[in-house]
Amino acid sequence: MRGKMEDIILASASPRRRELLDQIGISYRVVVSREEEKIKGDTPAEVVQKLAWNKAQDVTLNLQVKKKLVLGADTVVVWNNQILGKPAGEEEAFEMLTDLQGKIHQVYTGVALVYLDHEGKLKGTCFYEETQVEVYPMNEEEIRTYLATKDYTDKAGAYGIQGAFGAYIKGIRGEYSNVVGLPLGRLYQEMKKIHLELEGKMR
Amino acid sequence: MRGKMEDIILASASPRRRELLDQIGISYRVVVSREEEKIKGDTPAEVVQKLAWNKAQDVTLNLQVKKKLVLGADTVVVWNNQILGKPAGEEEAFEMLTDLQGKIHQVYTGVALVYLDHEGKLKGTCFYEETQVEVYPMNEEEIRTYLATKDYTDKAGAYGIQGAFGAYIKGIRGEYSNVVGLPLGRLYQEMKKIHLELEGKMR
Repeated sequence: MRGKMEDIILASASPRRRELLDQIGISYRVVVSREEEKIKGDTPAEVVQKLAWNKAQDVTLNLQVKKKLVLGADTVVVWNNQILGKPAGEEEAFEMLTDLQGKIHQVYTGVALVYLDHEGKLKGTCFYEETQVEVYPMNEEEIRTYLATKDYTDKAGAYGIQGAFGAYIKGIRGEYSNVVGLPLGRLYQEMKKIHLELEGKMR
Repeated sequence: MRGKMEDIILASASPRRRELLDQIGISYRVVVSREEEKIKGDTPAEVVQKLAWNKAQDVTLNLQVKKKLVLGADTVVVWNNQILGKPAGEEEAFEMLTDLQGKIHQVYTGVALVYLDHEGKLKGTCFYEETQVEVYPMNEEEIRTYLATKDYTDKAGAYGIQGAFGAYIKGIRGEYSNVVGLPLGRLYQEMKKIHLELEGKMR
């Protein structure tokens, strides 16, 4: 991607999200939101979009920069209608993976693209993508061996699809990058739309 | 993965396949087959499995090492019942992406795991995975911008899902790593099976 769509502000501390933006050539600087990751809302789609919006809004209002998109994002894993966030420790991670192995679960990432218009009003858009992930059956030794790599820490659902856990993925339905932390294809489409809007308004 | 399943021989020059094996911790050394990538067989599944088997067989017979698995693999893109291999140049790449944009296509990777038994007989297994890939509509400028990165060279179907082309992926159905060049989840399952067989026979 080129020109005005470059140079966004990424309101996320996740190294995976930085790598994903690098992958498709979107440049950014990171300004981490102080927004707490409290879960609000009824459905996973609501939860991730609200959290994404809150992070992006917090950074936008603090910085007060105009003509710049701020990207907030939040990812959760949903299994059996429960939202799984980041595990508190190895035992919680073990429980999560014991639930996920041999079954299909959902990964939701919510994304908010926020900016201040010329009057200083908060504008933007919010969307989410859902990806289904099927995990092969794993025995206890396989789960323990994976957990020993510490790859699970700081990851919703206690796994990273882009790491050693890739050995246990039977298949997915939806965007892969959405499972890593940002739905790149959808993001690019939404950035194109908002860029056209901004071009019109900012002239 | 640990112990005896490590230390395979990879009969492929693809850097993507090396990265995928690294991802799930399978160690390997590379011995490239001189087998030509000629397409034989009636269906894409047959073609990729035959090519994968030929590569692995060629390396196994040349090296004559026993008790070691040789992995051969081949990946093709299928659109509208045509097999797309690696593009010969930028114009062929442009034609391929013009076909693929806005539509769903299939990616087939065939994998062969071959070894010599104690009598020097060729043994092994062969399988394939199919992944469906949906690409967002792309205009000519977007295709040309992508091609200018040269990321398309040496890639079946003229794109790499793990690079800048990720901005145009609407979703997939199946294994992501299969699109990159090796179905990691299925590979791990098949290696577990063959490892159990080998343990029995090689005692």
